[in-house]
Amino acid sequence: MRPQIVLFGDSITEQSFRSGGWGASLTDTYSRKADVLVRGYGGYNTIWALFLLHHIFPLDSSKPPVATTVFFGANDAALLGRSSESQHVPIEEYKDNLRKIACHLKECNPTMLIALITPPPVDEERNYARTNEATGTYAKGCIEVAKELGLFSVDLWSKMQETEGWQKKYLRDGLHLTPEGNRVVYKEVISVFNETRLSAEEMPLDCPRQSEINPKNPEKAFQQKCL
Amino acid sequence: MRPQIVLFGDSITEQSFRSGGWGASLTDTYSRKADVLVRGYGGYNTIWALFLLHHIFPLDSSKPPVATTVFFGANDAALLGRSSESQHVPIEEYKDNLRKIACHLKECNPTMLIALITPPPVDEERNYARTNEATGTYAKGCIEVAKELGLFSVDLWSKMQETEGWQKKYLRDGLHLTPEGNRVVYKEVISVFNETRLSAEEMPLDCPRQSEINPKNPEKAFQQKCL
Repeated sequence: MRPQIVLFGDSITEQSFRSGGWGASLTDTYSRKADVLVRGYGGYNTIWALFLLHHIFPLDSSKPPVATTVFFGANDAALLGRSSESQHVPIEEYKDNLRKIACHLKECNPTMLIALITPPPVDEERNYARTNEATGTYAKGCIEVAKELGLFSVDLWSKMQETEGWQKKYLRDGLHLTPEGNRVVYKEVISVFNETRLSAEEMPLDCPRQSEINPKNPEKAFQQKCL
Repeated sequence: MRPQIVLFGDSITEQSFRSGGWGASLTDTYSRKADVLVRGYGGYNTIWALFLLHHIFPLDSSKPPVATTVFFGANDAALLGRSSESQHVPIEEYKDNLRKIACHLKECNPTMLIALITPPPVDEERNYARTNEATGTYAKGCIEVAKELGLFSVDLWSKMQETEGWQKKYLRDGLHLTPEGNRVVYKEVISVFNETRLSAEEMPLDCPRQSEINPKNPEKAFQQKCL
């Protein structure tokens, strides 16, 4: 019934409804306007994400999502020869997988708003499977694909590093986000959405506000305002 | 695709995705298992809720929700002669409206898990439109309807008052919930769900865990485990 916004990604998306989470904040912002559905898969890289495309975004859906955030790369960037190497995906393959994801989403709904989000930076003191520099290469690749395909993007890797002490302020364990880190994702994503027709402020409420209901004749407001 | 759990109610439901909110916590618990959809309408009483039934829960839906929380009464209990009297609904009419809501939901899906939640208690020092005693009458009425119709229920009004200092601990403004108050709702609702087939722990994940994926042959896990 309501437009749907899908959050597609790895654990940073899966955990986005914990206290202070960016997914919960988006849901709150789109309250009575759009449904936010979380499709986060802990540990997944873009190779495994491809297997989910037809499952999560069937091409024959009569009501495909109006927007999707695509937030992979933190696992793809795990280094060979270290503890998480089974998640590693070479950079060119990562970029190509992002292209495939975006193409599928466009096929699903040609007007879908697609926002690619780069992986966050890495605090190497607490995460031994990754380097910040290597993850930066994936972030750069993600932004390049967004530009190439005319998609929206959030350069989280760069944005977070603009703030002194980002390592502890934004990262809970060197990779996953603190509530403050979640706040950054929320602000960046909502600022992308606000540039578009999906600006929450401009979307209509699904039913009358309380102030529009005349208690003596409530029918009228519901006849006029129920979308 | 995934089973849907709907949260139907007034502002206490609408605000349930703010930081620490009970709706966000439910979404996190059902991550990769069920979608939680918020249908909260600030200021609404059960009279106005009735206008939304066919809109939110169409009878011809091919995939109706598997569970719905029904959380009204805080506004119905607003007293006549005080500032929020336009929201007032007489107690017997409130009970009858809850019956109508429950019957519609059962018609929508005969196996739907329906949980009625009573309004929270009121801190009269900070909310002048209500008394705690009057709201207690609505809470009692809500529990009676649940028993009468064989529905699940959460007696939030009683539960919260078991804790010393509930007024400030659980209520932000005398009526709406603090993060601690949200925690109580979450714990009570999840404990109801845990008694049923919708226990999150027993519901299957929608796709393989990372640990089930063999990086050298990922197809296999997806063929076996994608629901």
